[in-house]
Amino acid sequence: MLTVTRLDQADARLLLAGAAARAQAIGVPMCIAVTDESGNLLAFERMDGGKVTSITVAQDKAFTAAAARKATHEYNQACVPGNLVFGIHTALSGRLSVVGGGLPVLVEGEVVGAIGLSSGTPQQDIDCAQAGIDHFLQHRQAVQS
Amino acid sequence: MLTVTRLDQADARLLLAGAAARAQAIGVPMCIAVTDESGNLLAFERMDGGKVTSITVAQDKAFTAAAARKATHEYNQACVPGNLVFGIHTALSGRLSVVGGGLPVLVEGEVVGAIGLSSGTPQQDIDCAQAGIDHFLQHRQAVQS
Amino acid sequence: MLTVTRLDQADARLLLAGAAARAQAIGVPMCIAVTDESGNLLAFERMDGGKVTSITVAQDKAFTAAAARKATHEYNQACVPGNLVFGIHTALSGRLSVVGGGLPVLVEGEVVGAIGLSSGTPQQDIDCAQAGIDHFLQHRQAVQS
Amino acid sequence: MLTVTRLDQADARLLLAGAAARAQAIGVPMCIAVTDESGNLLAFERMDGGKVTSITVAQDKAFTAAAARKATHEYNQACVPGNLVFGIHTALSGRLSVVGGGLPVLVEGEVVGAIGLSSGTPQQDIDCAQAGIDHFLQHRQAVQS
Repeated sequence: MLTVTRLDQADARLLLAGAAARAQAIGVPMCIAVTDESGNLLAFERMDGGKVTSITVAQDKAFTAAAARKATHEYNQACVPGNLVFGIHTALSGRLSVVGGGLPVLVEGEVVGAIGLSSGTPQQDIDCAQAGIDHFLQHRQAVQS
Repeated sequence: MLTVTRLDQADARLLLAGAAARAQAIGVPMCIAVTDESGNLLAFERMDGGKVTSITVAQDKAFTAAAARKATHEYNQACVPGNLVFGIHTALSGRLSVVGGGLPVLVEGEVVGAIGLSSGTPQQDIDCAQAGIDHFLQHRQAVQS
Repeated sequence: MLTVTRLDQADARLLLAGAAARAQAIGVPMCIAVTDESGNLLAFERMDGGKVTSITVAQDKAFTAAAARKATHEYNQACVPGNLVFGIHTALSGRLSVVGGGLPVLVEGEVVGAIGLSSGTPQQDIDCAQAGIDHFLQHRQAVQS
Repeated sequence: MLTVTRLDQADARLLLAGAAARAQAIGVPMCIAVTDESGNLLAFERMDGGKVTSITVAQDKAFTAAAARKATHEYNQACVPGNLVFGIHTALSGRLSVVGGGLPVLVEGEVVGAIGLSSGTPQQDIDCAQAGIDHFLQHRQAVQS
């Protein structure tokens, strides 16, 4: 038997809140998705003004980052024609996302979930995803110390 | 041109909170989805213990209630073999849900969004969905009076 | 609550008529789709001779332009290998279209819907989509002045 | 954070072996799928003679039993026209299976995975699934005592 550590709903809210605060600060309303370590959705928020296409894209980014334990922008860099990874972006009917903006969430070196954002540029999406993770980790540290 | 009234993110949170409180009270962790009036997802929460299958089912219930402007249990009652509505449950690749637990959210007689729940019995899902709507309407009244 | 402005059926017909007239003029029968601001179909016409594959492609272009609030050819320009946006063309099971020919329809700076065309070259599709928008805006101005 | 207990590969093999032995004994070659507690596939075997359609059906049964924490035949009994659960069989594009033959695997009262079989009658599928669980639990007991 395996023992797995997984984000709970309170963790998911911290991730959402941190990401939404950064998105608010840069003036880009986002779709924000948080999944557990298996890629299944825990929480989602479409900020007022977030794009409808981003509802699915944000979830797919988070799914990919959790389920493949890899940031989607890392797949993006490898997913170029001629590279053997190329084509991975059509896997799972396109649900495997190679668009920047999905980051795995690690605690003590283990992937416990992921966060995915969409509606800005991929770089904005990545920055806000990282802000979510930073907020989550800071709050956890504050609680534990 | 048409003018449409739609739930915003603050409204969606009221709906989530009211539904989650009832689910907590009856001891059945739920998946809760809120969509806008077009059926597009605004907010989602999988309470700790909510079922993985319910992630999609809750969203599909809310989508159906908003997009068809009808409670999913009303479709359920009509969707019996021999009735001309029968078969509607396979429409949209099964995304059109006839399982009880999806309710449209009305403000001044107009559908402005919907809420869908899944993980309990359909009756529990319906009750928690209604609790979400009640909480939303009460809070709105308190703000406006 | 949010207030949203959306194309109505009369608007959709203006868009169709303007696009079809241009398609007729250049001798390329088209599939033409008009969606509301959420990406849901309002009107569709397959001109005599329009391609069967274009039935879906035109709808996906209009869906994308509305739901992402961006012309599909803008996605096309960014969706190149090595760019962080690459891979967006397979999102939503490929429904997110990066093929030129989908344009958002803006009124007073707000996306109120979109138009998508398919059957010609992407440049022809774009030109006819723009002709639809021009016709719509001209007719609206005449009515309002 | 949540801590989750999940079948490992050795567990999955015990489940497969027990189910296959029973299928062999009754002379019905089966497709056998084992998933983790989130419904993701851990192991699969198509015995010589197993049906091609059953490749997917067995996986869907195991997915459903794990992700909904319920035997698929229990859904079957509730999924009758006029009952509020009716329609659940088309959810998730039909991936939510209500055909008998999917059983959750419980250890100390917690769902740690599931097993799904297909190719025989549903009753044969259920019997072989149970044989897989029995074999798994017996072997675990022997190891632990």
